[in-house]
Amino acid sequence: MSLTFFTPGPAQLYPTFEKHLQTFVSGQLGSISHRSQQYRDLHKFTVDQVRTLLNVPDSHAILFLGSASEAWERILFSCVELESFHLVNGSFSKKFHDYSQALCKYAHIQEKPMGEGFSASEVVVPEYAELICATHNETSSGVQMPVSEIHKLKQKYPDKFIAVDIVSSAPYPELDFSLIDTAFFSVQKAFGLPAGLGVWIVNEKCLKKAEYIRNQYSIGGHNDLPTLWKNAQNNETPATPNVMGIYLLGKVAEDFNKIGVKTIRKETEQKADLIYKFIENTSGFAPFVNEKKYRSQTVVVANTEAPSADIIKAVKEKGMVIGSGYGKFKASQLRIANFPATSLEQVQALLHELKAL
Amino acid sequence: MSLTFFTPGPAQLYPTFEKHLQTFVSGQLGSISHRSQQYRDLHKFTVDQVRTLLNVPDSHAILFLGSASEAWERILFSCVELESFHLVNGSFSKKFHDYSQALCKYAHIQEKPMGEGFSASEVVVPEYAELICATHNETSSGVQMPVSEIHKLKQKYPDKFIAVDIVSSAPYPELDFSLIDTAFFSVQKAFGLPAGLGVWIVNEKCLKKAEYIRNQYSIGGHNDLPTLWKNAQNNETPATPNVMGIYLLGKVAEDFNKIGVKTIRKETEQKADLIYKFIENTSGFAPFVNEKKYRSQTVVVANTEAPSADIIKAVKEKGMVIGSGYGKFKASQLRIANFPATSLEQVQALLHELKAL
Repeated sequence: MSLTFFTPGPAQLYPTFEKHLQTFVSGQLGSISHRSQQYRDLHKFTVDQVRTLLNVPDSHAILFLGSASEAWERILFSCVELESFHLVNGSFSKKFHDYSQALCKYAHIQEKPMGEGFSASEVVVPEYAELICATHNETSSGVQMPVSEIHKLKQKYPDKFIAVDIVSSAPYPELDFSLIDTAFFSVQKAFGLPAGLGVWIVNEKCLKKAEYIRNQYSIGGHNDLPTLWKNAQNNETPATPNVMGIYLLGKVAEDFNKIGVKTIRKETEQKADLIYKFIENTSGFAPFVNEKKYRSQTVVVANTEAPSADIIKAVKEKGMVIGSGYGKFKASQLRIANFPATSLEQVQALLHELKAL
Repeated sequence: MSLTFFTPGPAQLYPTFEKHLQTFVSGQLGSISHRSQQYRDLHKFTVDQVRTLLNVPDSHAILFLGSASEAWERILFSCVELESFHLVNGSFSKKFHDYSQALCKYAHIQEKPMGEGFSASEVVVPEYAELICATHNETSSGVQMPVSEIHKLKQKYPDKFIAVDIVSSAPYPELDFSLIDTAFFSVQKAFGLPAGLGVWIVNEKCLKKAEYIRNQYSIGGHNDLPTLWKNAQNNETPATPNVMGIYLLGKVAEDFNKIGVKTIRKETEQKADLIYKFIENTSGFAPFVNEKKYRSQTVVVANTEAPSADIIKAVKEKGMVIGSGYGKFKASQLRIANFPATSLEQVQALLHELKAL
């Protein structure tokens, strides 16, 4: 039985994935040199499609890493000489903070319990923090920080760098890259691709900062920003990249562009609305995130009365896979991903089965 | 026209690649959670197959990274508090050295021109160097350091760590992991897979050293050895890994094990012998590496009288792709990869075409 995955990543593969994979294989693209014009054209195609999709200006480079987690480290190396600042309200925003400590930076923290969100007005960034690390979508708790609040936060602290984790929400958030210095995502979430590729969007100000820090401290040996940037100017990468992942990302981003990012965002909101209404109005379910403005549109987290494992098992027998809660909420919550790869009809079918339990 | 790639990586894909890819896709393995038992079984299968293939004892973990270049950095973070030592005779051994400098370590160097190899007896490791970095196969120049010399070098300096780059030769070199502390390779070379996965073999002594260094210096935030090691005990990875790459590696390693690594090594030597005899005996070609013991069995480098670009173009018209020289030798050398994915018959066909030029 073919399953439909509503898991927060790895997730349902985008419907066009197999077609693009077949083109990759039949074109023998897995064997081409990463220093050839053929590769550079492929690389440029993907960068162009992602640039269009997310409205990234030329002030920012679009770079490829092994994972979004690697981006945490590279951003901290590049933008933080001594002190970073982290908004933490879940496991992934906490890991960004932990990476900073592991790099021997002083990592300031403003923390809230899982399930709660941040508004710009309540955030206080310490004077010497160089970088504000914000998470648009906390995959562990289903909390989002509204894009308007992220923008306000940067406007409140215009002289500090801001990094935005859009791992499990891109291309949903409409970030204004005239404000956002750097952002990053991985492809196994809303792009519906197999894992193994991280995408790092980063501006020239970060590059200059990295070059400055390098005079005093290490900014890493592998995939350091100046080397990545220099290679990207030539549509290349310093090391042999995940060519298949880059190709597939370009093709799916092209598919998204053909549909139109506005349509994708609207469909995301429509489907999220259905799911939230269901868990609000169905006995045995309740939204984990109380305040509506902080509810994620791409990863919906529900408290369950029944053990979530029982629900997951029952739904799987109907051909649908939903995620368990994260960490201490594993047994008492569900995480339902709402990515472009699952259609309105598939979401309706899922809710139909959940209703029938 | 379908091409046969004799390029040093990305290279010809292994003949079973498409079959395994199809199984991956039809099993929806691109969507499974990397925290599920299904993933852990997949992960363990690959580790077990690689362990068997390369005869890696249980003292060593087999870990997954985004690329072999990432392994350079992680090894230096883990095994070097202050000083490393590098045998450099080409572009890739030089990069390992440069990574050490970028991490603000003191990187000692013993250097030879491209095309020349190292014997253990001539190597002098400075007293305070903690790690010896050796390259089994210099992809840029087609020089190998014989495994016997690598083993002798470690025996000469038993108290120092030794790291061996087997990126473009594994599974050909028969390393004795009772001597070798750490080694690493990437899958787009002799394993005939698309790029995007690095494999890091590392022993518990390195882990202990990393834990010691961590008390004083950063050992990185992403994929640091203690965190990778802990996750590997549970057949997991800290971040979402390249599940497709790990799956395909396991299946191709299984194919190799069915053939037998001894047979693969013998076939590699037979094919290399053919290629070297050809370039020795054919006017217009000459081996770049003079001393036979230092000639790579997996990447053969030939000087050419005619511009190498002309030869590459002529051969491509016959459906075969060979590599250009590296760096300053781009125009005057050919690099012919000799990996398991290209058969004796395909090598003979290539030499036939080169002869006819």
